[in-house]
Amino acid sequence: MHELRKDPLMSRWVAVLSDSKKPEEYVLQPEEVITESNCKFCAGRENEIPYEIAAVRESGSQPNKSGWWARVIPSSKPILQIEGDLGRRGIGMYDKMNSVGANEIIIETPDHNKKPEDMGFEQMVRIIKLYKERVADLEKDSRLRYILIYKNSGREAGTLYSHPHSQIIATPIIPKRVKEELDGAKQYFAYKERCIFCDMMREELRYGQRLIFETKNFVAFCPYAQRFPFEFWVMPVKHSCAFQDIAADEMNDLGLVLFTVMKKLGTLLNNAPYNYVIHTAPNRIPRRDHWHTLGEDFHWHMEITPRLTNMSGFEWGSGFYVVTTSPEDAAKYLREA
Amino acid sequence: MHELRKDPLMSRWVAVLSDSKKPEEYVLQPEEVITESNCKFCAGRENEIPYEIAAVRESGSQPNKSGWWARVIPSSKPILQIEGDLGRRGIGMYDKMNSVGANEIIIETPDHNKKPEDMGFEQMVRIIKLYKERVADLEKDSRLRYILIYKNSGREAGTLYSHPHSQIIATPIIPKRVKEELDGAKQYFAYKERCIFCDMMREELRYGQRLIFETKNFVAFCPYAQRFPFEFWVMPVKHSCAFQDIAADEMNDLGLVLFTVMKKLGTLLNNAPYNYVIHTAPNRIPRRDHWHTLGEDFHWHMEITPRLTNMSGFEWGSGFYVVTTSPEDAAKYLREA
Repeated sequence: MHELRKDPLMSRWVAVLSDSKKPEEYVLQPEEVITESNCKFCAGRENEIPYEIAAVRESGSQPNKSGWWARVIPSSKPILQIEGDLGRRGIGMYDKMNSVGANEIIIETPDHNKKPEDMGFEQMVRIIKLYKERVADLEKDSRLRYILIYKNSGREAGTLYSHPHSQIIATPIIPKRVKEELDGAKQYFAYKERCIFCDMMREELRYGQRLIFETKNFVAFCPYAQRFPFEFWVMPVKHSCAFQDIAADEMNDLGLVLFTVMKKLGTLLNNAPYNYVIHTAPNRIPRRDHWHTLGEDFHWHMEITPRLTNMSGFEWGSGFYVVTTSPEDAAKYLREA
Repeated sequence: MHELRKDPLMSRWVAVLSDSKKPEEYVLQPEEVITESNCKFCAGRENEIPYEIAAVRESGSQPNKSGWWARVIPSSKPILQIEGDLGRRGIGMYDKMNSVGANEIIIETPDHNKKPEDMGFEQMVRIIKLYKERVADLEKDSRLRYILIYKNSGREAGTLYSHPHSQIIATPIIPKRVKEELDGAKQYFAYKERCIFCDMMREELRYGQRLIFETKNFVAFCPYAQRFPFEFWVMPVKHSCAFQDIAADEMNDLGLVLFTVMKKLGTLLNNAPYNYVIHTAPNRIPRRDHWHTLGEDFHWHMEITPRLTNMSGFEWGSGFYVVTTSPEDAAKYLREA
């Protein structure tokens, strides 16, 4: 079984897989992206992959048969497994635990070659609806502390399948990056007694030069201190710490914003690889106390990051990033695209 | 002029360059690696690049002429500039400062096609000597808080030149990643009253399965909770927080360890791209108080990371890594290579 290990210096958990790859597997067979001819996510091959967990379907269609617009399946090579207890324990000076959690794949369309920007706005809303449904279900499991929804598009963004899909990973710990963000928001709240995200959004609306697109319920902008060129954030106007509390009209609006800005991004950067991640609060059930505070000081949002450049030892060693297109210029290009 | 901006949420500084790249520059002309035919780092082209700051030369040879084994020049496109004051100021809710610091390039050999593992042990020692000399000089500047020495090898590791080289960046702030590591070490020290790195090294020597190579003064091992397959650390046996305090016999030993293990790595992974970074304490002069503590709780070392896989939205969003070759197996491959 895979195991989770904690770096005692950085307080970072990692998953160490039990079936180690050999050196030559990296060199001779670099990770292959599964293309259309081998793709089991396409419509008509439902019986070759695990049973679906959820789906948005044409009325009258049967589970695990065709007639779906978008569906969720468990990963066939999960890093985290849904069975078993956490088994936290020490080994020498180090800490480890069992690799408990969930790994799911959201197949975003039956059609292999549809890009998100061609799916249309309704399809985007269906996908968001599935995200919400899965989080609402997974957060009932008291072993799980965090649910991360993300998308990899393109090889440099770490994808293994070219069929449009996104992923859900539920972890038994609050991951390091998430904790840092929660801590940062908490510190700001302690000092200002205001949500940092609400303040940032107000600042961006006032300044205007980093804005890309806005609707009644969402604002898309390039952050002031972005890490990567053309990185942008999408944030709900109404303060809310948890993505899964999104209302129906907000889902429509989020679908519209994502559809619109992703289309601009695709046009501008010739469908460059990108990642997006939903940044939301940890699960409320196992951490009710922490949650109570989070409700005020955290604000869920999405971060979308094109992968245009390679990280160097400088970024790796320092966490200091060099931005080769200013967020003001990037926002202008995106507004005008 | 470039500017440094601070992310108010993550307390992360980034450098925003003043001359923004256009979208098509990423798409149509991805960053090109400068190969031998255009390389100005090769011997004989000394007059086409900035004057050397330091060098290790044959006795009797002249600065900026041939006859050098390794030399240091300022970057011709610096991100941080050595002139001017810091100019820390606010803008709306955000913070910025001038892009003050230093950017230097260590040309590791006159010969374009020499790999570190072919340079031989003496050449490695010359390079380490230059690192030490430059840090000792730069740390006199009281505006500079941190000096980062790193190497990028291969496109995926972020290099722009195929000529063997490493880089020095001196920053007017302590970078986020460095601060996290210092804080982690400090917390451990507060609890245990021992250096975490000394403890890790003792644990690795006791356990043995993650050891790669050891000499009188240095130990090379794969860390227990590594982030990337075949990542390894090189650590001085004697507790010391600052790389630049390295003694002459330790330089010889470090040269031997690096030469040996990099050769193994190159053989095993077919010269895959990699980064290395020297993790050392912040400059002592401007932060004497902080330094006093650091002397006990921090321990300088090197982290070497092959770049074999692409990061996905999961790693980006969570800071949680998936390791596809266990450190025990990686160390075994490296010991036996």
